[in-house]
Parts: sequence; structure tokens; C-alpha cells
Amino acid sequence: MKERRNTACSLRCLVLMKKDAKTLLVALGGNALIKKGQQGTIEQQFANLKVPLHQLARLSRKYRLIITHGNGPQVGNLLLQQECCETVPRLPLEILVAQTQGQIGYMIESTLDSELMKLGVHDDQKVITVISYIVVDENDPAFENPSKPIGPVFTREQALCLPYPTKKTAKGYRRTVVSPKPVTIVEKREIKHLIDSNFIVICCGGGGIPVVREGRRFCGVDAVIDKDLASAKLAREVGVDIFVIATDEPGVAIDYGTDLQRFLPVLSENEALDLLNSGVLPPGSMGPKVQACLEFLRNGGDKAVITDLKDIEKAVENSAGTRLAL
Amino acid sequence: MKERRNTACSLRCLVLMKKDAKTLLVALGGNALIKKGQQGTIEQQFANLKVPLHQLARLSRKYRLIITHGNGPQVGNLLLQQECCETVPRLPLEILVAQTQGQIGYMIESTLDSELMKLGVHDDQKVITVISYIVVDENDPAFENPSKPIGPVFTREQALCLPYPTKKTAKGYRRTVVSPKPVTIVEKREIKHLIDSNFIVICCGGGGIPVVREGRRFCGVDAVIDKDLASAKLAREVGVDIFVIATDEPGVAIDYGTDLQRFLPVLSENEALDLLNSGVLPPGSMGPKVQACLEFLRNGGDKAVITDLKDIEKAVENSAGTRLAL
Repeated sequence: MKERRNTACSLRCLVLMKKDAKTLLVALGGNALIKKGQQGTIEQQFANLKVPLHQLARLSRKYRLIITHGNGPQVGNLLLQQECCETVPRLPLEILVAQTQGQIGYMIESTLDSELMKLGVHDDQKVITVISYIVVDENDPAFENPSKPIGPVFTREQALCLPYPTKKTAKGYRRTVVSPKPVTIVEKREIKHLIDSNFIVICCGGGGIPVVREGRRFCGVDAVIDKDLASAKLAREVGVDIFVIATDEPGVAIDYGTDLQRFLPVLSENEALDLLNSGVLPPGSMGPKVQACLEFLRNGGDKAVITDLKDIEKAVENSAGTRLAL
Repeated sequence: MKERRNTACSLRCLVLMKKDAKTLLVALGGNALIKKGQQGTIEQQFANLKVPLHQLARLSRKYRLIITHGNGPQVGNLLLQQECCETVPRLPLEILVAQTQGQIGYMIESTLDSELMKLGVHDDQKVITVISYIVVDENDPAFENPSKPIGPVFTREQALCLPYPTKKTAKGYRRTVVSPKPVTIVEKREIKHLIDSNFIVICCGGGGIPVVREGRRFCGVDAVIDKDLASAKLAREVGVDIFVIATDEPGVAIDYGTDLQRFLPVLSENEALDLLNSGVLPPGSMGPKVQACLEFLRNGGDKAVITDLKDIEKAVENSAGTRLAL
């Protein structure tokens, strides 16, 4: 009986408690939906999402929560589909990013709703998925050099036959697209208001829809923004305390992929810069994660951790992942 | 000088003024993006959107504003694309609806942002696109009978060769899918909060992502919900005063498509029921619009009008469209 009364109290007190709560931003990697080696059916994607979202539902009782997410495989699939089909006019990349924000936002939100219902706190939580676009600089040097890998992995032989630029990544050859730096999130005022009103906010999916400002209007550009750098920008603009990047690795490793591979519990700014400058952190994957954490901390953030999707709760409590330190 | 001071005042007073403003819900038809006979390139879609959104930007200075929208051609294109492409796992219809909410939500929001900037009131307006899902009843008889036309128009000969059910509509033969009635909008609390906080809210795109509640979770279903009926349900759940359905016709006509065709400025409930029962209002098009308006008025709404996309402002002021009356 005592336990039941405690639960009832904790539900009623949730809104009051969260008023002074810290704000936690968790950036989910594309592998939160499609794991290495999976074909990526809708059933697989929903099943995979339960692992991070069960933890995030629990964390939402203690923290104000923002969830961002990747979209690499999903946007790659949409690109492939529209290349197969001659009868439908092709859409530029930023529209495909918008489509994946709808798709993945819905999948995350409905899975989170289910997890909140399991915990019995669904009626106390407001959850919202916000379509987000992000201004980039039209003079960003990235426009000269498509460097961001997206979509499926190819063998070297397949890659040579493709009609667009590709690059060798840790996983294999992948299509590369332009990836400019995020300048500002257009919906930052709206997202800040939602966080202050205790909404759980899902936003900046796939790094946000990239736009440039041309006089009195925004224009989409054919590019994708790195979702970790976009998340760090958002964290700065809306005031986040704790930043967790959840991926398919336990953290940052030295001697990655060799027999000497060792994951680091803490990574100092100097060590991080050494790793970034020596090129051992791949630019399309762990590189921007480390960079995003450093930017977050330099702009006043409390804590930044890179961790495995199954260890998000532990990472928030300092018992998993690689914590970056200035 | 006097005029400039007035403008400055009206900007500063916007938030205060809107506190007591009426709430206006405008449901934009799919033709707000792709007009009859157009191929539907992204440039055409953005150009078409300016016509309704210029008016909505102006109306947002006087009214709290909710925008819903159709997605027929867009979801039809996604269906076609995934049928062309064998290598990508197919997604169920509710995921495609989610994708179109992202796509069209972004297109509406960014066009509206530009129109607000032109009016010089962008910084005073918070705009947000909310991914929305809607509960339907798994025992809805609609699940026995795919009746909602979506996607491209085919000739009779083409339709006979298609691997899915089709139906003759006013425009030609189209694919039909299951279309259950909306029961409740999952995000209604969130949308109500946003309206009360003076956000312009874009939501319930394509009639919402259809889900059924199974115990402690929501499950997507392979269906589409009529966007006008979904809009009427939303209007009831969040408290809307004025409901405008904007389409490619000036209103409801009698003797539609004949030499005697005549658009009605006012349509009483009895006349509307006669038209619905006699089957002269096509079930996939004008029928649900009239039905949605009647439901809205029966549930206490002030005013419901069906009008052309270019006449939204006039319709709000009673000088265009067909106004339904109880």
C-alpha cells in the first residue's frame, strides 16, 4: 500500500519536480533504428527503438528531455527509391530530410508513448515532435566538397559504378553529400518555450532540414547537417545541461579496430584534439561526436558523454561511456 | 509617421491582442501544393503554397491559427516509388503518412515564415509543425471496405491492370485505401497548450497518422484518415471557433458539373443532409467536407465555410465560399 501511495505522489509531483530539473539532450544514432547487418524492416526499427526509449522514459521523470536523432539509412533509402522511379518528380535532399523527420519522429514518439504508458506516467507527460530546420551559411566551404556519408554501404566494386561521389568509411563505401555547419536552429524560440513548459521534445531529426536565408525568405539546400553538431548547436541555443550521444560503440577508443583497442572512460580536451588532429577519429562518424561534445562544454554545458545506446541511463550517472572533460 | 507608429504598436500589441482572439482552423486541400494537371515538381509546390499562406500570414495577426493539410498526391508518389524499388523494404501506409507530415509541414512552415517576414511580423510569431497521430477504432467498418482515393489519377484501362483496388472519382480512376473515422488526436493536450501560448500550429497532416490503441501501446494501421474529418475532430478537441476548408472549388454546388451548376453562399443542415443522402456529393471529395463542417457546428463551432484556396480571407469575412448553417 505504501508503495502505491508513493507512486501516486510521484506522479502528481512530476510537473513540480521538473521545474527545477536539469535539461538532458540525447542524440540517438541512426543505429537506434537499424542495426548493423539488418535489412531495416519497419518491425526491426520499432523493436530496436525500445532499447533507448525505455531508458529515456525513465530519465524523463528526473530530467527535462530533448531527443534528437540521425537519419542516414532512412534518407539513403528514400534516395534509392526515387532513383528507381522515373514517373515521380525527384525531390531535393532537404525535402527527403523533412520526410525522415516525420517518419522517425513518429516512430520515436509512439515508442516513447508506449514506454511512458508502461511506467504509468503517460498522462503526466507532454510529448511533441517538432519539424526543425536549421540555417547554414551559403559560403560554407563544405559546399565545395561532399564529405558526409549517407545511405547504404557498398563494396568497392559497386561504388565504382555509382553515378555520385562515394567514400570509404569504417563500414565500407558510402555515398557522400555536402555537409555544412549548423548556424542557428530556426525553431529555437519554440523549442525553448516547450522545454520550459515541461514538454519532452523530439526535434532536429537528421541534423535538421538545411536552409539558407535569402533576404526575407528561407531556401532549402541540397545538403545534410551532421546531427551531432546540430544537437550541440541546439543545446547551446536552448540551454542544455547534459549532452549524451548514443551510438553503437561503448565510447571513444584508442587504437580502434586493433588488438590494442581500449575504450576511454574520460577524454580530456587536449587528448580529444590530438585524436581529431591525428585523423584516427573518422570524420563521418566518431569525429563529429567528439567535436560536438567539445563545443557543448566550451559553451558552458555541464556534462557530455558518448555511449552505447543500451547504456544511456548509466552514462547519465557517470558509469558508462566516454565523458569529455575540458 | 503616424502610420509607422501604428505599425510598431500593432507589432508590440500582437501577443496581447491575440490573447482574446478567436481560434481559426484552416484545412488546406492537397491542391494547395499540386494543382490539377501539374506534374508536382518541388518548385510548383512551393509556388502554389504562397497563395493560401500569404492570406494565412495576414489572418494570423487577428486570429489564433491552426493549419491542417491533405497529402493525397504526396503519399501516392511515395507509394509509387516504393513499388518501383525492390531493394528497399516497403513501409506501411501510416509511415508514409508520417513522411508526408514532415515534408508538407516543412514546406508550409517555411513558406509561412517567408510570408510573415514580408509582413514584418515574423519575430512576433511562434510557428510549429507537430507530427500528429490519431486513434481509430479497430472495429470501424471501414476496415472491410477500402474507399478513400489516394495518389495519381489513372484511365479505366490503366486502372484494370493495377494490383490494388481502384475507384472511379470525379477526376478519373484512383487507388482506394481503408479510411476509418478519427476517434481522438493523441497530441490534443499538446496542441491545446500551443494554441493557448499563441503558437501558429501546423498539424494533423494528411488526416493524421492512424493508430489503434492496444493495451499500453499505440500501433500504426495501414489506412488513411480523411483530413477534413480529422480537422473537425481536432477543432472539437482543442476548441476552435471558425473552421475553413480550402479546396479547388469556390464552394458547394448544386447540379455540379452540369450547365445548371450553381455555387451556394449558404447551405443549411437539411439541405446538406439531402445532398449527402442523394449521393450527389462525391464521398472521396466534397462529401466529407460538408460532413466535417456539420460535425463542427453541431459540436458548438461558430462558423464553417468551404471555399477556394484563393478566397480564404474573404471566406473568414463571409464574402466567399459556402457557409454551412444549422
